[in-house]
Amino acid sequence: MKTSQILKERVGGLWEKYVKHEFVKQMKEGTLPQESFRYYLIQDSKYVEVMLRGLMRASSFAPSSQATQILSTILNTRDKGMEVHNYLLDKLGITHEEITNTGYNLANYAYTRHLYYYSTKGWKEFLSAWAPCMWGYYEVGKYVADSPNQLFSKWAEFYASDEYKRRVEAILGALDSYEFSEDLLIPFSASVRFEIMFWEYSLRREETPFYELI
Amino acid sequence: MKTSQILKERVGGLWEKYVKHEFVKQMKEGTLPQESFRYYLIQDSKYVEVMLRGLMRASSFAPSSQATQILSTILNTRDKGMEVHNYLLDKLGITHEEITNTGYNLANYAYTRHLYYYSTKGWKEFLSAWAPCMWGYYEVGKYVADSPNQLFSKWAEFYASDEYKRRVEAILGALDSYEFSEDLLIPFSASVRFEIMFWEYSLRREETPFYELI
Repeated sequence: MKTSQILKERVGGLWEKYVKHEFVKQMKEGTLPQESFRYYLIQDSKYVEVMLRGLMRASSFAPSSQATQILSTILNTRDKGMEVHNYLLDKLGITHEEITNTGYNLANYAYTRHLYYYSTKGWKEFLSAWAPCMWGYYEVGKYVADSPNQLFSKWAEFYASDEYKRRVEAILGALDSYEFSEDLLIPFSASVRFEIMFWEYSLRREETPFYELI
Repeated sequence: MKTSQILKERVGGLWEKYVKHEFVKQMKEGTLPQESFRYYLIQDSKYVEVMLRGLMRASSFAPSSQATQILSTILNTRDKGMEVHNYLLDKLGITHEEITNTGYNLANYAYTRHLYYYSTKGWKEFLSAWAPCMWGYYEVGKYVADSPNQLFSKWAEFYASDEYKRRVEAILGALDSYEFSEDLLIPFSASVRFEIMFWEYSLRREETPFYELI
């Protein structure tokens, strides 16, 4: 069995708790309060920035062909993602300044420091920590795509797209080039837990007291 | 005056010693012994690998728009470079194994460790350490392009190309977004010296006793 498949199986029911979280269900049904979505988008923007830096750092440990392929795939499909992202920010009146001036909530701060940590440990460890985010959002995108709420369906459309799927395939392909080991389960399962907490904290619009140096 | 221009002026005559080195002149005239070129290509292949890893590592410290732009430009123009590179390796019977099994000479080892060091220090410091290589090779390419030796002209053709020029412009554009400071001159001038030594060591086919962990 593929490494990615083993990892997913080993986290058991946590995976469904992540991809079918109450936050996700409310997006699909169109009942999610817009304020929660707005809160989520700001936290997510902060997360993506750290994730990209982590990818770059971790790539420096990777076999060059894998690093090149993944970075190309991510960067070449970035325009579409940014287009949707900027459309949503615009619709909700979120500026770059607001994102910078808002702190991280505890779940997001823990999650991004966890990604940073694994980006300094090694490539396959980073892939394993990163996979739940990329992989899970593809499933979430497919699930939410038919939302009656135009903002949520627009958001989901990108994650359900073929372009996004290519990213996921590139990442899982790289991860699957390594044999499964219990070591890989540690970052993977922590990231699944962080994803669940990420929805949770967004539903509750938790306080955001954690900042980075700029 | 632009930061890159100040840096070039401040290294004075060293720049010409680099881009019009005896090794370069012999390529242009077609008199360079093929064995020296072969030796050079192996050392250069090892260098490029470390340089790319350094770029990825340093990018994690960069403003995301700059990191994205430079990585995209480098990766999207990489096919052409690899095409020429692989053509030359093939012509000279150089395998991937030979590159891996050959050590670094002292100049190359010092140069690549220097790049590693700056890739951990910060983005503008790395740009300054990296610029002499990218910028100088464009000038070298233009100079060597009319060589009567088909291997050397093929080699030069890529560095003299518009695709390669776009890389140089992206890098210098990023470097020029920072004000000149004496601190930036330190990595820049060391790299110019290493480039000169790189040609020197290749002409003399110096011993290659330095290895990395794989």
